[in-house]
Amino acid sequence: MEEILKEIKIIALDVDGVLTDNKIYIDELGNIRKAFTYKDLAAIEQLRPYFKIILITSSDRVNDKLAEYMGIPYHHVRFGGRRDKKQHMFRYLQRRGLSWRNVLFVGDGIVDKTLLQAAALAFCPSDAAPEIRQLEAVYKLGTKGGDGVIEELFYKVLQREISRRRTQHG
Amino acid sequence: MEEILKEIKIIALDVDGVLTDNKIYIDELGNIRKAFTYKDLAAIEQLRPYFKIILITSSDRVNDKLAEYMGIPYHHVRFGGRRDKKQHMFRYLQRRGLSWRNVLFVGDGIVDKTLLQAAALAFCPSDAAPEIRQLEAVYKLGTKGGDGVIEELFYKVLQREISRRRTQHG
Amino acid sequence: MEEILKEIKIIALDVDGVLTDNKIYIDELGNIRKAFTYKDLAAIEQLRPYFKIILITSSDRVNDKLAEYMGIPYHHVRFGGRRDKKQHMFRYLQRRGLSWRNVLFVGDGIVDKTLLQAAALAFCPSDAAPEIRQLEAVYKLGTKGGDGVIEELFYKVLQREISRRRTQHG
Amino acid sequence: MEEILKEIKIIALDVDGVLTDNKIYIDELGNIRKAFTYKDLAAIEQLRPYFKIILITSSDRVNDKLAEYMGIPYHHVRFGGRRDKKQHMFRYLQRRGLSWRNVLFVGDGIVDKTLLQAAALAFCPSDAAPEIRQLEAVYKLGTKGGDGVIEELFYKVLQREISRRRTQHG
Repeated sequence: MEEILKEIKIIALDVDGVLTDNKIYIDELGNIRKAFTYKDLAAIEQLRPYFKIILITSSDRVNDKLAEYMGIPYHHVRFGGRRDKKQHMFRYLQRRGLSWRNVLFVGDGIVDKTLLQAAALAFCPSDAAPEIRQLEAVYKLGTKGGDGVIEELFYKVLQREISRRRTQHG
Repeated sequence: MEEILKEIKIIALDVDGVLTDNKIYIDELGNIRKAFTYKDLAAIEQLRPYFKIILITSSDRVNDKLAEYMGIPYHHVRFGGRRDKKQHMFRYLQRRGLSWRNVLFVGDGIVDKTLLQAAALAFCPSDAAPEIRQLEAVYKLGTKGGDGVIEELFYKVLQREISRRRTQHG
Repeated sequence: MEEILKEIKIIALDVDGVLTDNKIYIDELGNIRKAFTYKDLAAIEQLRPYFKIILITSSDRVNDKLAEYMGIPYHHVRFGGRRDKKQHMFRYLQRRGLSWRNVLFVGDGIVDKTLLQAAALAFCPSDAAPEIRQLEAVYKLGTKGGDGVIEELFYKVLQREISRRRTQHG
Repeated sequence: MEEILKEIKIIALDVDGVLTDNKIYIDELGNIRKAFTYKDLAAIEQLRPYFKIILITSSDRVNDKLAEYMGIPYHHVRFGGRRDKKQHMFRYLQRRGLSWRNVLFVGDGIVDKTLLQAAALAFCPSDAAPEIRQLEAVYKLGTKGGDGVIEELFYKVLQREISRRRTQHG
């Protein structure tokens, strides 16, 4: 994995089920609320100087605010339309002269499947959809969505690569 | 179960304790909020082309909004009045020329008991009321209410039936 | 316990830590929210015809609304003042010509200690304060606060007594 | 530890991940909400007569309200600026003629690291960041953030010291 990590430039994150526990809190007016964790925010702060971090998910007003709060650019994908997450990511890479080998993606649901298979490195939370957990191309993390998936990714996988980059640039 | 599944046309779902974890979040003004999971929403999207999906529960403004958000028709039942869930479902079937053998129902509470016993297939979450979990007619799922009961139902029970229907129509 | 149960007329419940998980959700304006479960509400509906059910807790606007939603009379207690829960309950009993042997109480915290010791039957959730869990006079339930403590009390302890009363009156 | 406890005058608490479970509930307007537990509030009430209790965390409108609700003075720290938690605490001690041996601190995150190492006694929740859990200077509690970390601290560590102080002053 070390060699693959060296090439990673983009860390793309799904929101629901990765940064959140997939729960939607709804009230009598239909307003919704979701929960994320400071653990992931702290990990993202550490990753930020070394990787471009983006959220890639369907449009949702809570996700807008979550992205704003976390200070992460947010790329929403129209579902039911012509595009899916993989296609969307592909154009994103094309515009920047990058390729799949520059992408690490974390996703948990069926809509993440093709992108998980295309990315150089793919991870899912421990409670991802059964169909996703069975994919050979996807590393299963030990943390549930919303409980610090990105914190685990940081300590288990990315911390050493960051040390390497820091040493290199030092 | 395979033969029974072939006849299922209606998937009827209780809300509190099935799509939610039975929790009601209440504030200082008495406004309430409940949580459901995208896992179930994703499963319902997959079931929708092959089954008629309905919610069957008592009236509640949050449930109205939850049904709207999920895009599922919502049939509320008056409790304490003349009707119960089973009676309500029976009239629903009569109006459409259907019978109990066309019904799969997921419920968790005492008010769901008679309907669970009448439906061709009946399921309950792992944390249903003790009285419900003891019913022989009811299959016990491994998931708690609100944690993806419908996702489990999809992967364990309905996915194969959908493949069959898809092949048949293909 | 059977003989003691026959004398129980009042079921008194603490709110925070019994009907809720002790959590207080607070927002940027200082408004608070708490969660309770339909499991307990369903159990209380079954108990209502056979017992007088009351909430006994400190005053709090969310507790007002919770009591209203559950349809349970709410007796608040001033803390830091002259009265405590036991004293409050004692006067309540006096005014009605009742005594401690008519009281079943469920509490979880240090402020519940004297009342737990005075009541004929006392129960606490599995995650009550260590000081409460150690009291010999208190039965430890297997359910955490907010997860259906009253449901467990109903099925494990009170259901049989209700059958007895129903038979007697039938 | 007994001898060190005798010198403790300040109990300083981090908020997110200690009094809360690190979760941030965000809505469509970007308003946030967090949860804490009455268990900790009850423990703090018992500690208050014997220790100066302060919150030490970054500024956040929810934390303002949480501090207000708990009746605890709140010392916020600017991050990304010139100060960190340790520096902030150091000046706080200087102004009062106190030293590190008077400080017990509970923290869970990377930003708490230097202060955890400086304090005479340092504790972290069971789900603190891996980097914090590995510190030799930090006692690992068995409770997760937001589930009653201060309650555990009270019963396991501070109750005996309080008895000692009470006896001494009696």
